[in-house]
Amino acid sequence: MPTIHRVHNFAAGPAVLPLPVLEEIQRDLIALPGVGMSILEISHRSKAFESILAQAEADVRALGQIPPQYRVLFLQGGASMQFSMVPMNLLGPGATADYIDTGSWSEKAIKEARKVGAVQVAASTKADHYTRVPAQTELTLSPGAAYVHLTSNNTIEGTQYQRLPDVGETPLVNDTSSDMFSRPIDVARHAVIYAGAQKNMGPAGLTIVIVREDMLERSRGRQATLPTMLSYAVHAENQSLYNTPPVFSVYALGLVMKWLLNQGGLGAIAAINERKAAKLYAEIDRTAFYRGTAEKSSRSLMNVTFRLPTEELERLFVKESTAAGLDGLKGHRSVGGMRASIYNAFPEEGIDALVAFMRDFEQKRG
Amino acid sequence: MPTIHRVHNFAAGPAVLPLPVLEEIQRDLIALPGVGMSILEISHRSKAFESILAQAEADVRALGQIPPQYRVLFLQGGASMQFSMVPMNLLGPGATADYIDTGSWSEKAIKEARKVGAVQVAASTKADHYTRVPAQTELTLSPGAAYVHLTSNNTIEGTQYQRLPDVGETPLVNDTSSDMFSRPIDVARHAVIYAGAQKNMGPAGLTIVIVREDMLERSRGRQATLPTMLSYAVHAENQSLYNTPPVFSVYALGLVMKWLLNQGGLGAIAAINERKAAKLYAEIDRTAFYRGTAEKSSRSLMNVTFRLPTEELERLFVKESTAAGLDGLKGHRSVGGMRASIYNAFPEEGIDALVAFMRDFEQKRG
Repeated sequence: MPTIHRVHNFAAGPAVLPLPVLEEIQRDLIALPGVGMSILEISHRSKAFESILAQAEADVRALGQIPPQYRVLFLQGGASMQFSMVPMNLLGPGATADYIDTGSWSEKAIKEARKVGAVQVAASTKADHYTRVPAQTELTLSPGAAYVHLTSNNTIEGTQYQRLPDVGETPLVNDTSSDMFSRPIDVARHAVIYAGAQKNMGPAGLTIVIVREDMLERSRGRQATLPTMLSYAVHAENQSLYNTPPVFSVYALGLVMKWLLNQGGLGAIAAINERKAAKLYAEIDRTAFYRGTAEKSSRSLMNVTFRLPTEELERLFVKESTAAGLDGLKGHRSVGGMRASIYNAFPEEGIDALVAFMRDFEQKRG
Repeated sequence: MPTIHRVHNFAAGPAVLPLPVLEEIQRDLIALPGVGMSILEISHRSKAFESILAQAEADVRALGQIPPQYRVLFLQGGASMQFSMVPMNLLGPGATADYIDTGSWSEKAIKEARKVGAVQVAASTKADHYTRVPAQTELTLSPGAAYVHLTSNNTIEGTQYQRLPDVGETPLVNDTSSDMFSRPIDVARHAVIYAGAQKNMGPAGLTIVIVREDMLERSRGRQATLPTMLSYAVHAENQSLYNTPPVFSVYALGLVMKWLLNQGGLGAIAAINERKAAKLYAEIDRTAFYRGTAEKSSRSLMNVTFRLPTEELERLFVKESTAAGLDGLKGHRSVGGMRASIYNAFPEEGIDALVAFMRDFEQKRG
């Protein structure tokens, strides 16, 4: 085999996957061992796929320490589809949902919920340009709200909750698209947790929804009008096989789950993720040449956002880092500057390479 | 490389893919040439993926000879999601949609449409156990209907339209999930054509929707309440990049489109598909031991359904054919018997192997 050139991929998602996972996919691509067909060809009703799906769910459960009263659903459409599915399943007529607004993705979730029912914004950090998540004392929760929705990690703005807010007895719905399974999660404090797979867990095309069983009653109450494909209850009752699931993405996610378990689980990967982010933030804080955009108490371990003294230097930084094999560092246009997305599978040597590049760039241009 | 054992896969979908496509996916799995990342890792906003998506669309257009006033959308959720998206986009208040009922999938489409608006069943062959599609003279079309919906190939029942019905000026919506790109299609006679990719076009997790631009106006008229992810107009305006698309499935479908173009296009693949199906139907018709379940004038070139003299013989047939490397021949429980799904990539030697097995089985058990 020729040596394969791989760059360091700092993209916000889809994002880097563990190399051993890619190698296993490649090895078995023509025919799964003992099956005689590619994973790309097997029937979703076959014993082989049933076993792959069951194992993926078991590993998701083991990794997330998911209590038995929660169902794990393998869906399509990403977080954007969940922005509609959450209110369509959970927000009944006359009820209000509380949303915490911490950035672009929260805003999209609010916009979709407003098409379905009444929404109250329980807190917003928009006035601070979303440079932080709100403190507990800033939350104004509606009595008897159908649920409270939050975005645990804000991919674009580079902020993340360090701890879950206290929402009392109200069901908590958490969009964890950019940090699910990057650290331990207290599932029991949630009613629904959802995430697109394509950042920390697998390739694009698969969405994980962890839903507490009592929430399924709300879906069932809406079945006369709720599209079948958007019903949590239908997918739960059919073990995510109501229709053809994204077979390959489920398989690949299963391999990433195994890899995470082999890393030692969520506590172990969290320690690695903390160390990776700490190295980058230390470099940002070492000099006034680089400036973190998020408040320190809200800094994300997943998306490290920073700026340079001028936009011209930022353009140069993007150009030269890309040429140096550090790909995808250009920040989202709404924030500007740089963004280093360093999910679970992003290797520590890539962090070291970026830190070295940052030092070198400052010396030459600072 | 060790010799890889592959069986003949007669599954109804996901289904067999061309071996050269699987080999190309395998070769480039760790890093796309010149990109330095796996297709499973690249950003959907990257130049590399933009180019893959644009090429896939260009090849879909070339293969289907799609006129310029049609948009090609790459979506998620399969035909089951389209069952809801079609009426949610196209069926306005006070309007009626006509549905032609030719089997299990038509019934599901009707059920979802009824959640949205008024539905009239323009014809149904249910009384004949769906063993045929209706004749033109059986259609009762509503004057001024919002659209007419049909299912071009009925995967479960093994029936297929030999020619499109005439629906006058009413927009025609066609679920071609199990025969898109298995034969030439007269796109200009349609308003919307949709299909899950996982039978003739690629792996599961991707849905192709071909939509005439005037239909997008209907989506736009509903944007106040239509979930953004379910809007044809939004996906069209964003070139299928409103949110993260199923990157890998788009790539794989693109490779299958290239393979189909290399086969000579839809005319050429239709000739091969006709020859493959004719061999199987000839064997079924040769003897009273086998009995086709569909009326001859409605026989599907994609799903060949047949029964044996007894259910015990059918169980034996399934068991022994599977052991002989002919996998997935058990028919759907609602029809019983056998079903040989022989989509585009199903190799002709697999047909010959099945015919030989059928002869042998009849000799031993007939």
